[in-house]
Amino acid sequence: MLKKYNFSASAAPLPEEVVEKARAALSDYNGMGISVMSLPQNSEAYGQLLASAERNLRKLINIPQNYKILFMQGNATTQYSAIPLNLLSEHKYADYIISGQYSKNAASEAKKYGDISIASTSAGAMPPYSVVPRLMKSDFRPDADYVYMRYDNMIHGTKFNYIPDTGNIPLVADMSSCFLSEPIDITKFALVFASSEGNLFSPGLTVVILRDDIIGKANPMAPKALNYKLTLEELSSDNTPPVWSIFLANLNFEWLLENGGLEEVKRRNDRKAGLLYDFLDGHDFYTAPVDKSCRSTTHIIFVTGDAGLDGKFLRDAEAEGLLNLRGNNSLGGMCASIYNTMPLEGVEKLIEFMDRFSQINYKSGTK
Amino acid sequence: MLKKYNFSASAAPLPEEVVEKARAALSDYNGMGISVMSLPQNSEAYGQLLASAERNLRKLINIPQNYKILFMQGNATTQYSAIPLNLLSEHKYADYIISGQYSKNAASEAKKYGDISIASTSAGAMPPYSVVPRLMKSDFRPDADYVYMRYDNMIHGTKFNYIPDTGNIPLVADMSSCFLSEPIDITKFALVFASSEGNLFSPGLTVVILRDDIIGKANPMAPKALNYKLTLEELSSDNTPPVWSIFLANLNFEWLLENGGLEEVKRRNDRKAGLLYDFLDGHDFYTAPVDKSCRSTTHIIFVTGDAGLDGKFLRDAEAEGLLNLRGNNSLGGMCASIYNTMPLEGVEKLIEFMDRFSQINYKSGTK
Repeated sequence: MLKKYNFSASAAPLPEEVVEKARAALSDYNGMGISVMSLPQNSEAYGQLLASAERNLRKLINIPQNYKILFMQGNATTQYSAIPLNLLSEHKYADYIISGQYSKNAASEAKKYGDISIASTSAGAMPPYSVVPRLMKSDFRPDADYVYMRYDNMIHGTKFNYIPDTGNIPLVADMSSCFLSEPIDITKFALVFASSEGNLFSPGLTVVILRDDIIGKANPMAPKALNYKLTLEELSSDNTPPVWSIFLANLNFEWLLENGGLEEVKRRNDRKAGLLYDFLDGHDFYTAPVDKSCRSTTHIIFVTGDAGLDGKFLRDAEAEGLLNLRGNNSLGGMCASIYNTMPLEGVEKLIEFMDRFSQINYKSGTK
Repeated sequence: MLKKYNFSASAAPLPEEVVEKARAALSDYNGMGISVMSLPQNSEAYGQLLASAERNLRKLINIPQNYKILFMQGNATTQYSAIPLNLLSEHKYADYIISGQYSKNAASEAKKYGDISIASTSAGAMPPYSVVPRLMKSDFRPDADYVYMRYDNMIHGTKFNYIPDTGNIPLVADMSSCFLSEPIDITKFALVFASSEGNLFSPGLTVVILRDDIIGKANPMAPKALNYKLTLEELSSDNTPPVWSIFLANLNFEWLLENGGLEEVKRRNDRKAGLLYDFLDGHDFYTAPVDKSCRSTTHIIFVTGDAGLDGKFLRDAEAEGLLNLRGNNSLGGMCASIYNTMPLEGVEKLIEFMDRFSQINYKSGTK
């Protein structure tokens, strides 16, 4: 049977050992005779699962004790509202760095709740958002409640190559599309969130890591389910948690710890992305439009320069088991999402196909 | 090996045929070679899954075309905010029927956003909330934007034995703990929601069924992810949906359709609940505190009248494979949640154990 590789941006492919554990837990979690999805929220087993997920994540990212971890429902869109509703103070100022469509959406949502200023945007680059804005401390309003950024831009294929220095202003980062793909210095941020499309495996969960001192200042009109302090206090009593997604995220944390942690996964990811970028840069049949200084190592964007040929590429790739390489609807072209669990051989097979496709289509004069 | 039965209120046990399909889809959804969790949100397969879930649910409940179906993230707590944020108009009136802790929580959240009046409460019953309030049209403010109720009260073991007549005022019902346990006349309601603890299988999803005419009046301060109109319009573009939970809910819809639909499932549920209530009413060792006129057929509450003996009951039951019979933390005692997929033999085994337990503990003089 044809071996298939899934390059979808939606969620990372599950390693075989994770699939095995998930299959077992569907009907019998830890030999308890019940499904992980039916774990009562007041049970010891659920408490242990949550504690284990938190412990493993702290270990992976090296999260200090003055940061709390929330496993919330909803996805990034929910956080676009939760962040201003929790962090904007009386004077209601925040500065947004716009590096792509998602941070633009976040800023537009935040404008409902306060005075939101665009510190910088790379919308004017060609192609739009193909670089990330470069900012210094003096670019932010010193009385801002926070500075907001999206660290990796799945749609546009970019990733910040630096952490902006915001001085004493809390820095908030959406890391949804690159979370756990490499070590991060969490102490440079006041809040990091990641929705679980991506390296967490199962849409339906958003991990929020936030520093103690920014908790507890929520707008009284904030919906309870979006209030960080209340979520922290009542996590296991009032709200039934997305237990399946937490269970899968924890399997992912364990898999990462067993595979050498984030240093090792970064080494593997750099190698996979390096192979593909080197190939793209060496073949004028394909164009990788993102500025070399800030290329995402998780989402690799490329085009042939001809929409019809892009379509043929996607169809032919699909037939060879190279799935879901279609770029975001708004941009067209191709996007290879190479999450942690994409094996090296998947990338090698993609490159081998791309090489062949370019030769055949040159010869036939399609381009 | 000891056969186990899970009486947890958290989520219904999965039938073996559902487990099989879910296991397969973890690594290979419909022969596509990728996990259901990695389905791209812009893929044909995801569109088909969503359409199939909607079609099956419409068929099951007989939902007319002027009602829309939303598959939202978050759970009931999110809806406690979403409902006033979407339905309160300029004059901001709503009437709440308080039949238990959950409707009380819902009213308390709604008070952030408007003039919320308590139409009636059964908090004063003995034990509190052991009956449901009985209301007539004249009990509601004629200019109210909506009337809110919780139809089945998992914690307290009650279920409404009538649908309140609210005249032209839209009636909103939280059906989280009894959804799909029996036919409902959806046209009596303007909005029904159910979070997926319960008969939907997997926490992380809330189904909202709502009438066209109440959509589109949201408070401009409503978070985007809680706005019904925007959720409807952008369901498959902006937000990554909780695809696993939707997939499992749809397996549940299919299972129900294959098993005779809601009429047949009501017949089975009535039989299971009837057996247990008949036993409780015939044995003075146990007390079923809920008024006979409004007993839930899904969540059956009982006590021995002695907290120590309740503890022994729970431990002994656990040892016999009768799991998670502990009542809500706030009430103590026992709660047997008998969801659609609990087999009759699970209830028979519980009754047989209860009978034996009462004989042994009478003899030893514990009570």
